[in-house]
This record gives sequence, structure tokens and C-alpha cells, in this order.
Amino acid sequence: MFKKYNVIVVGAGHAGCEAAAAAANLGSSVLLITMNMGTIAQMSCNPAMGGVAKGQIVREIDAMGGYSGIITDKTSLQFRMLNKSKGPAMWSPRAQSDRARFAEEWRLALERTPNVDFWQDTVTSLLVKNNTICGVKTSIGIEIEADSVVLTNGTFLNGVIHIGEKRFGGGRTGEKAATGLTEQLVELGFESGRMKTGTPPRVDGRSLNYSLMEEQWGDEERGRFSYTDVELANDQRCCWITYTNSKVHETLKEGFERSPMFTGRIKGLGPRYCPSIEDKINRFAERERHQIFVEPEGWNTVEIYVNGFSTSLPEEIQYKALTQIPGFETVKMFRPGYAIEYDFFPPTQLSLTLETKLISNLYFAGQINGTTGYEEAASQGFMAGINAHQKINDKHELILKRSESYIGVLIDDLVTKGTEEPYRMFTSRAEHRLLLRQDNADIRLSPIGHDLGLINDQRLEKVNNKVKNSDDIVAYTKARSIDPSNVNTLLDSLETSPISQGAKLFNLLSRPQVAFTDLRKADSALDELLSKYDKETVEQAEIKIKYESYFEKEMDIVDRMKKMEDREINAAFDYHTLQSLSKEAREKLMKIKPRTLGQASRISGVSPSDISVLMVHMSR
Amino acid sequence: MFKKYNVIVVGAGHAGCEAAAAAANLGSSVLLITMNMGTIAQMSCNPAMGGVAKGQIVREIDAMGGYSGIITDKTSLQFRMLNKSKGPAMWSPRAQSDRARFAEEWRLALERTPNVDFWQDTVTSLLVKNNTICGVKTSIGIEIEADSVVLTNGTFLNGVIHIGEKRFGGGRTGEKAATGLTEQLVELGFESGRMKTGTPPRVDGRSLNYSLMEEQWGDEERGRFSYTDVELANDQRCCWITYTNSKVHETLKEGFERSPMFTGRIKGLGPRYCPSIEDKINRFAERERHQIFVEPEGWNTVEIYVNGFSTSLPEEIQYKALTQIPGFETVKMFRPGYAIEYDFFPPTQLSLTLETKLISNLYFAGQINGTTGYEEAASQGFMAGINAHQKINDKHELILKRSESYIGVLIDDLVTKGTEEPYRMFTSRAEHRLLLRQDNADIRLSPIGHDLGLINDQRLEKVNNKVKNSDDIVAYTKARSIDPSNVNTLLDSLETSPISQGAKLFNLLSRPQVAFTDLRKADSALDELLSKYDKETVEQAEIKIKYESYFEKEMDIVDRMKKMEDREINAAFDYHTLQSLSKEAREKLMKIKPRTLGQASRISGVSPSDISVLMVHMSR
Ligand SMILES: Cc1cc2nc3c(=O)[nH]c(=O)nc-3n(C[C@H](O)[C@H](O)[C@H](O)COP(=O)(O)OP(=O)(O)OC[C@H]3O[C@@H](n4cnc5c(N)ncnc54)[C@H](O)[C@@H]3O)c2cc1C
Ligand SMILES: Cc1cc2nc3c(=O)[nH]c(=O)nc-3n(C[C@H](O)[C@H](O)[C@H](O)COP(=O)(O)OP(=O)(O)OC[C@H]3O[C@@H](n4cnc5c(N)ncnc54)[C@H](O)[C@@H]3O)c2cc1C
Repeated sequence: MFKKYNVIVVGAGHAGCEAAAAAANLGSSVLLITMNMGTIAQMSCNPAMGGVAKGQIVREIDAMGGYSGIITDKTSLQFRMLNKSKGPAMWSPRAQSDRARFAEEWRLALERTPNVDFWQDTVTSLLVKNNTICGVKTSIGIEIEADSVVLTNGTFLNGVIHIGEKRFGGGRTGEKAATGLTEQLVELGFESGRMKTGTPPRVDGRSLNYSLMEEQWGDEERGRFSYTDVELANDQRCCWITYTNSKVHETLKEGFERSPMFTGRIKGLGPRYCPSIEDKINRFAERERHQIFVEPEGWNTVEIYVNGFSTSLPEEIQYKALTQIPGFETVKMFRPGYAIEYDFFPPTQLSLTLETKLISNLYFAGQINGTTGYEEAASQGFMAGINAHQKINDKHELILKRSESYIGVLIDDLVTKGTEEPYRMFTSRAEHRLLLRQDNADIRLSPIGHDLGLINDQRLEKVNNKVKNSDDIVAYTKARSIDPSNVNTLLDSLETSPISQGAKLFNLLSRPQVAFTDLRKADSALDELLSKYDKETVEQAEIKIKYESYFEKEMDIVDRMKKMEDREINAAFDYHTLQSLSKEAREKLMKIKPRTLGQASRISGVSPSDISVLMVHMSR
Repeated sequence: MFKKYNVIVVGAGHAGCEAAAAAANLGSSVLLITMNMGTIAQMSCNPAMGGVAKGQIVREIDAMGGYSGIITDKTSLQFRMLNKSKGPAMWSPRAQSDRARFAEEWRLALERTPNVDFWQDTVTSLLVKNNTICGVKTSIGIEIEADSVVLTNGTFLNGVIHIGEKRFGGGRTGEKAATGLTEQLVELGFESGRMKTGTPPRVDGRSLNYSLMEEQWGDEERGRFSYTDVELANDQRCCWITYTNSKVHETLKEGFERSPMFTGRIKGLGPRYCPSIEDKINRFAERERHQIFVEPEGWNTVEIYVNGFSTSLPEEIQYKALTQIPGFETVKMFRPGYAIEYDFFPPTQLSLTLETKLISNLYFAGQINGTTGYEEAASQGFMAGINAHQKINDKHELILKRSESYIGVLIDDLVTKGTEEPYRMFTSRAEHRLLLRQDNADIRLSPIGHDLGLINDQRLEKVNNKVKNSDDIVAYTKARSIDPSNVNTLLDSLETSPISQGAKLFNLLSRPQVAFTDLRKADSALDELLSKYDKETVEQAEIKIKYESYFEKEMDIVDRMKKMEDREINAAFDYHTLQSLSKEAREKLMKIKPRTLGQASRISGVSPSDISVLMVHMSR
């Protein structure tokens, strides 16, 4: 009934969808098996993509030929570049999407990907021979063969939903949990753990009083995730901001004794940085209020997502507390918030390609690896899909460096350090974040996507032009001077000191107060030049002018660390033979099997002196 | 957390959606509780509305102010008026809809209905006091009060899905079953039964070879369901026809010994008139081939519905058989067909308002009553929603007559005769079908909708104008003569005999060969008159001219039967006191408690002589 596939992807969440698309676009025949074809790329929680550090990840996926950015752009209701007032390394795109359209567009995109086949079913076990994956078995008893399998089960493995004291099996509200797989994997030698996450109640927008809230509009000049020319909707939707207060907090506390988290019924660890509202008022008892983002779920629906109010307290407590929030006095709920506990597999059991160490050609991606967030999931899926294809075709692995991408940081962190709680990306996790910006993800990564064959020549050429043209602009500003008489009025109006003799445009632009948009008004030749280029190119030039010196310093650091980063360690190396290593280091190194000295240095429990021992040994 | 509602509707299938909308539009506060807000108005089986007799029902719902026709028009990919070559009583509109859009538009329509609130949850029991409903209890333990409850659980009550020898709980593929309710109702004294239905596999349109199939396009002049001015899509999608053959049949037979139907694993009775393919080749062994309609599931998706191939044979048999159908040689399946068994409640336990006889203010509508089909479900939901509202407001019941609507026939059949197998509407079930046409549903029923307040003055006026204007046209044709010289060439070309002297237009139009479209070419005054009216009005006039005499005869019959139909029987009447009734009649009459002598006469087991006994008694 089924041919043998190159790659089977289990689960069509964000990870699974990117995995299927990537492997298929590289040329693998792919079967995407998912429990319900009606919930492909379902956003389980908030209908938004991006945000700080996460937005950068979406840009990185897009730069290499993944779909997440395109789908987000196609379906976005509102776009904002967060942190615009900070340095460009902090700029982070975020978009609200129409939840239904997002899922639909993903499905259509996959349907339009010729090598992707679909099968609606639940995978209940894996077919393994000689520690190598050879296919899957489904709930209706079918066995399907494959060279490679990517597991992206999300929150579904033995999922248990909690609302107050009630608990029931489920992978998401209204959906079944997936059983069997964890047990089999544990039998095969995998270690599994338990995590939890939560989601806020959904409410009826018709029952809210928006006049009591602050409006929050998208950026006037609307940005985008994808470096391709996706058509954007003409208008945007408004969101709103409101706040909890002490009454809300008191009400929520009434439910604490029935909270599945506080009473210990939930064993799994939750995401510290996506805390539930009860967590927030518990941990930050001194805070008098917390922000609530009131976000529409779609262009047309009245359903509203109450961002910031994730909770698993009893539903009547949720309700009562909601009614005490300004604007929510007469709120009607559509469904309560809930928490979900699920199995994950500590990602230290993976190699940097996301292949499991125990079973060849078996890959894990997404929430199953202990991460949280669509973007984190999507990027892992993308990488796993690529690596699955590359391996079975004896092609080179794709391992991104920490200095070239957030995705590299994410996977290196997971595989090297593991994670005790749901792992979420932050800019602070990336030591070279100055280089890992949303504006240059294409410059950093499109050559890699092109090399793989996921990005066509045209797209690469566009990137190369952006680099060349922005360099030309920079060079121009370094060459061209402007007279005081032509620019001092402008400088004055920008509250920066006037010049007394001709100055290079470059030097003026280096001042934080002066931007191209200002200067081009004062210099028609500059204006003419800039008008030849698109927005992104001009922006790139401006970022270079203003921050190049910082970037160069960062590049120096990267270069200096490169030696260690690139110093490969034989995977078969037996650390037990090196008696001068600490006992803990020996054990951890045996477990993680780092690929490079750099990776070894990031393993917790491996000290700088252990690294010295290794270096000495390796240079013999 | 919840206020007390006027009406709670359990389940948001076709029945539940119409029930919620109707009650809310009449002024009731309505809470629609459904297991998953993502599957509101999900089409469980084929993505099409209407068809023979069913299309008439949709028109009837629309004529009274229901939503099904509007939603279908908004989302239709293809429209065909079936049976156009037969008399107008057989004309039946049918439309393919985009499955996802259909569900979405229904949800949006309900969201735009101010009195409808939503709650995503599963109802697990009913709150009953003194044999009167007073609310529901849900799976998360909430009790919600209401004056009235409409149950529309569809195929979900203890649903069990069968594919070959495998069986698992579920209300639809990928969805949970609903448990608890049947058991409670049985405890309350209800009788329950088991039925089954099935659905075909879904396949990947990219894997089909359409050049081996026949194209089937929609009507060039696209019709519509709704009497309102819903905007229709500009184009239509093609469907295809192909056929099974003896090879396909042989392959299917290989699976018979593992068929859940033939091996007796499925106990419930299936719809005789929507048979599975295995049923067809079993029952019609002499037929060499069966038609397969290949229908797209939406505007953009590649998913294809294989109409005519409903099956619960093992999935590999389904697959193998499919590959032997012309055009399906390289088919890829998305998911197998399956059968589902579910609980229903014999509808003789209901009164003609769809209220249960045992529990006041509790209504059943849709598949729970042993029917099959979206249209049957929607119409019951519509009627139950209306009657629930009317009763709690001490307003008159709405019981439609058999002579005025298919809906009347449907409900009278169900309540009076019950049903042993899934009940589907046919034109043959309506003794007065000549009068129950799709072209006059508005004339028959809009005054009722207007009287209730579901149809505004404008809409009623439009109907009244249609009547008046079509009468004017008829009168005109009766008055106006045409000369032989002006019309004989035309008559000749239409292959009907020429006239020798002036003839009334009416008389010419009475000929089956002559239509307005022809005659207006020959008579510019007629043409001018007709061009003042819309298509429907002219069509109405034409139908009157051609068939009025038949209609009048039918009306006579209705009138003659009216006496008996209208003769009401006291609901409290104790038939046991009438010893001259047969024993069976006494029992059946006590059970059904017919409202009129007419209804009594249709109860199986009640003979004409029993009716005479009743008549004699009643005229005392
Ligand atoms: C209640 C809830 C709250 C959340 N809150 C947050 C939050 O606050 N912040 C945040 O960043 N993230 C949150 N998330 C997490 C976010 O949804 C996930 O990070 C993201 O969806 C993970 O993507 P994924 O592809 O790994 O898995 P998922 O999106 O969960 O997709 C898994 C897919 O696999 C399918 N599947 C599972 N098992 C099988 C099987 N055996 N056979 C076939 N198919 C299978 C499922 O049907 C599904 O399609 C939340 C998730 C949930 C459920
Ligand atoms: C597999 C399959 C094949 C079919 N084949 C055919 C066919 O060939 N021809 C044909 O005419 N018809 C067919 N049908 C029937 C058709 O789908 C139904 O007639 C129609 O959908 C019935 O509408 P309904 O509103 O009664 O119920 P449904 O459409 O089944 O809707 C029931 C709704 O109630 C909800 N629900 C159920 N229980 C609860 C609860 N306890 N609490 C809250 N919500 C609840 C469900 O989530 C769902 O939304 C088939 C149905 C199925 C499932």
C-alpha cells in the first residue's frame, strides 16, 4: 500500500512541517504522518510568530529556504519590529497571524511540495533493526518503511491536560494524546522526562469593553519575515493592552489550593519564561499588576487570545479573575486555559545533526526535545529534515555554528547542555548575538541554503546584491563630504553638534542621532543614490555604518575562538583513558561525545582545566 | 461563571448550528456547547449539500430564515440543478462546497448572531428535575442551567470506528467519542439503538490521472440555494466521473471475510440508500460497474473525496481496489474510509415539535434521531431551536404539515413511524411532492418564517412580489394571442405542430416543447414584459403555466385529507378505554400519542378500521 519512503516525518506541527518540506525540497520522498490532517501546523497556543530572538530564528529559517516566514507573512494580521529603539542586534520581528489561515496556508504549501505525501494516522511504534530505523507502525496496524524517520510529536506523547483538580488525557484540548512511542523508546534505551506548559483561556471579543484598554497597532511601515516577496494584507488589526490588579491576584490566589501546579499534581517542569499567571503572582509577589495583551485570533473571528494569562487554575477562578480585569467585566469565555504535561527526551541523547545517538537515521525535532515555542520547533524540524536527507544520500551534514546563527546556538545548547526546563531562545543565549541579527540572516545563511539547493540562484543573487550595494553605499558615504552650510540646520534640529568644516557623510551617520532618512533630505546626491536601492539595502548600509566597529570586534572574538571551535575530536575517543580529566568531565564527555573542543568546553561539569588536558592530549 | 441560558444546544454539527441560530434569532439567549470549536459545522462525509429531496430541504430552511443555504452558496465550488429534464417537482439543487470554508463560514455566521455564546467542552450528563430539563453538566464538571436543551450529538454517542478488523472509539476520525449521555438517558427511561454509517477514503488529487475520467461541470447558469442575495464565486470547479469494474469488485471481495459488516462485528443498521461499495457489489452482484464521483474537497486543496466508494474494508484492500479504477492507477491515499457505529434514540419518543415525551423542554435533533444527512440534520435542528424558544416563551408550536414541506414529512415520518435504519429523505416519501418544490419553498414557507420573526418584511415582500408578478405574467399569457405567421417557424423548429389561427401564449406554453426563452424571441411584447422581472419570477410563471392543473389536482387531494389531518386528538386520551381498537393499535397509539387523526393513520399497525373506530368515537 505504501512504497518505501526516504523520510517519514511523524507529526505535522511546526517542526514536522518544516522537516517534511526541507527533506522533500532536497529531493527525498517524504511521508508526513499526522493524527489529524485538519490540524496541520495548528498553533497550539498564541497565534503569533517571532518576538525577541524567536523572530531572528524565523528569518534564519527563511534565509535557508524554509516556509515558516512565508506562511507567517501570508497570514499576518499585525506586524511589529520589537526593540527598534535598541541596537540592531535586538530588533526582533513579531507578527500576529490568523490562526486558521496559518494552518491552512501551511497545509497548502505542503500540498504544493511535490515530494510530500500525507497519511492521517497515529504512529504507535518504530521499526528498528540493528540499531537503525527502518520505518514506523501506526494505530491501524500498518507498517511503512523508510530510510529515515523524524519524530516531531510535540506535546502529544502521553499528554495529560490539567484544569484545576481535573485531569484527562489529550495532546491539546479536544485532541487525543499519543501513546506507545515513549514506552518503546525507553525500552530501546532512551531516557525520557516530563515537562509541562500552559495556555490562557480564549474569550468572546464581543463581550469585551475595548474602550478601557490601550490600543496597540502594528508598525505603520509594515515589515515582513520572509526575504521573498510574499504579498501582505493591506491593513492590519489592532490589539489591546490591559492589566491585572490586586483584586485579580487575590481572586487567583483563591484557587491556589486547587492548582495542579502548586499541589504537586503536575510533575513536569514548566517554561520559566512563559510563566502562568499564577506563577507570576507567586514569584513576583511585589508586582501590583501584570500586562495582558488582548489579541484577535483571526481577521474575522470574534475569538480573542488573552496573552499573559496562561493558567491551569479551576475554570471558575479563571473566569472570576478575568472579570476583574479592566475591559473584561462582562467577559464570556469560549474555553478555559489549561496546562498540559507531556513526555520529552533529554536532547543530550542527540548529535548536533539531531540524529539520535542510539538509533541511526532516527531524528528528533521540536518540543519532543524539551524546547518550547513554534520557532524553536520549526528550526529544529528544518535542520532535522535536511540532515535526514543528507545522511541517507551520503552528503555532508548541516551543523550551524553558534557564531553564524541562533539555530546553531539552539541546537548546540540542547545537545551539549541538555535542558531541565522547557528551553526557549533568548538573545542572551547567543554570545555572538551582535552578529546574529534579523537584518543579516540572509547574508549569513542564504549561501548555505543555496549550497544545499533550497535557495535558487536568483535569491542568492539578491543577497549578494544586497551585500555589494550596501557596501557601495558605505563606500560612497566614506568618500563624500558635506559642507557645514548644507547640513548644520539639520544637525541642529536633530540636537547634535554642528560641524565647522566639511565632514564625511560616514562620520555624520556614525552619530546615533543622524539617520539616512534625515541626511538624504540635506544632500540630493545622496538621496538620488539611495533611491536606486530597496529599503533593506539602505538599512543594511546604515547598520554597517553605525555598528561596523562593534561587529568587527565581535568577529575578532569569533576568529580567536575559531581554533577551539573547529578543533574536531574523534567521536570514538575514549575519555576514560585520560586519567587527568575529572571524573565528572570523563562521564559527561563520554555521554555527550562533543564534536569539537568548543563544544566540549560548553558541557556543564567540564572545566577549563579539563579542556587544557584535552588540548594537551590532542596536540601530542 | 455562566448565567442561566434560555437554550443550551449540545453539539455544533448541522443540527446544532441551525438550532442555535434559530433560537437566538428568535430572541433566546443560547449557549452552544461543542467538543471542539475548531470543528463547528464540520462536514463529516461528503463536501456537498443538497441533492434529490435534500436540496428541497435546504431551500425550505432558507425560506424560513435558517443559515444552511446561505453558507452553502457562500462556499460552493460547483452547483447543479439535478433532474432538470424531469418535472419541476424533481428539480433538486446540489452544490459541492469547500469543506474548510463551509465550516468557517458557519462559525462566523454564528459569531455574528448576537445571542449565541460558545463553550468548548463535552456534555456528559443532563440536569433533570421533575421530568423537566434544567441544564447540563460537562466533562470538566461545570453545571450550566437552562430553560431548554437541544441535543444534537450526531455520530458521537459511544461512537466506534471500524476499519477492517480494527476498531477504536471516536465520533469521527481523529475525534473523541462522547460517553455518558446515552447511559443517563436510558436510565431516565429512553430507549436507545445502534446505527452505523460509513465514509470513503480521501486521496491525493496529485496522484490521479483525470484524462481517464469524464469531466462533470456545474450548470453554466449557476443556481443557488438561498433566496437571499449571497455573492457567489465567479468560477466553478470541475468534478470527474469514473467507474469501478469487475477487477475492483474481485479485489474488494478479498476483504469480505475481514469486513466488520459482513462478519457481524457491526451491529448497527446502515443507510440502505447510501450503501458502502462492498454493500453495492454484494447486493447488486449483477452490476458490472458502479459510478464513482471524484470530487475536490476545496478550492485549493489537492484532497479528493471519492464519492460512491464508502467502505470499511481493511485499508490495504481499499487501496488495492482503488488502484484498479481508471484514473486511480497511481493513487495515493490520505486516509482510509471507515464505518462508524453510534447510539441513536428511536424518534417515536419525540413529539412533533421534537421535544422528548419523557423530559419536558428537552429536544433531540439530527443524527441522534436516527436520520442521516446534513440536510435532514439541519432542518431538525432548525425546528427544534424554534420550538425550544417558542415553548419557553409560551408561544405557539411550529409543526409543519406534510402537505407544506419536506421538513413536515421528515418529522412526521420520524415521530410517527420511527425508523429502523438511518432515515434519508426521498421525494417518494412525500405524498404531495408535486407541491413541495424547490422553486416554491419561499412561497410555501417564508410567511411562516416571517410570522415567527426570522424573515424580515423585505424578504416577505420579495416573496409576495414573486407570487404577484408571476401571476401577472400568467394572466398576460392567457390574454395575449400570437399570430401563426409570427410563431409557426419557431414551433416548427421546436418540433411541435404549427397553429392555423391565433393562439393564446398560455396555450402554446402549455406544450412541453415551448418555453418562455423560445417564445419571447418570437414576441417582442412578451420579451419586454419578461425582461422586467427576475429569473425566478419568470420561472415561477412558467412552472405555473405548465403544471398548474396538476398542482390543482394535488391541492384538491390535500383539501380532502385536510379534515382528517386537522382533526386533533387530545394528547391525554386513553386508548385503552377503546376496546374496539386492535391490541396493536392501542399500544402504538399510546406510545406515539398522535396529535391528529392524520398522524394516527400513518402509524404502522394502526389499520383503516382502527381509524374508523377513532373517528366514530371522536364524533360522539
Ligand atoms: C497548551 C499549550 C500551551 C503552550 N504554550 C506555549 C507558550 O506559552 N509559549 C510557547 O512558546 N510555546 C507554547 N506551547 C508550545 C508550542 O505549541 C510548541 O512549542 C510547538 O507547537 C511545538 O511544535 P512541534 O512541532 O514540536 O509540536 P506540535 O505543534 O505539538 O505538533 C505535534 C504534531 O504531531 C502530531 N503527532 C503527535 N504524536 C503523533 C503520532 N504518534 N503520530 C502521528 N502524529 C502525531 C500531532 O497531531 C501534531 O500535529 C504550548 C503548547 C500547548 C499545547
Ligand atoms: C463517517 C461518517 C460517514 C457519513 N456518511 C454519510 C453519508 O454517506 N450520507 C449521509 O447523508 N450522511 C452521512 N453521514 C452523516 C452526516 O455526517 C450526518 O448526518 C450529519 O453530520 C449529522 O449532523 P448532526 O448535526 O446531527 O451531527 P454531527 O454533524 O455529527 O455533529 C455532532 C456535533 O456534536 C458534537 N458533540 C457530540 N457529542 C457532544 C457532547 N456530548 N458534548 C458536546 N458536543 C458534542 C460534536 O463535536 C459535533 O460537533 C456520515 C457521518 C460520518 C461520521
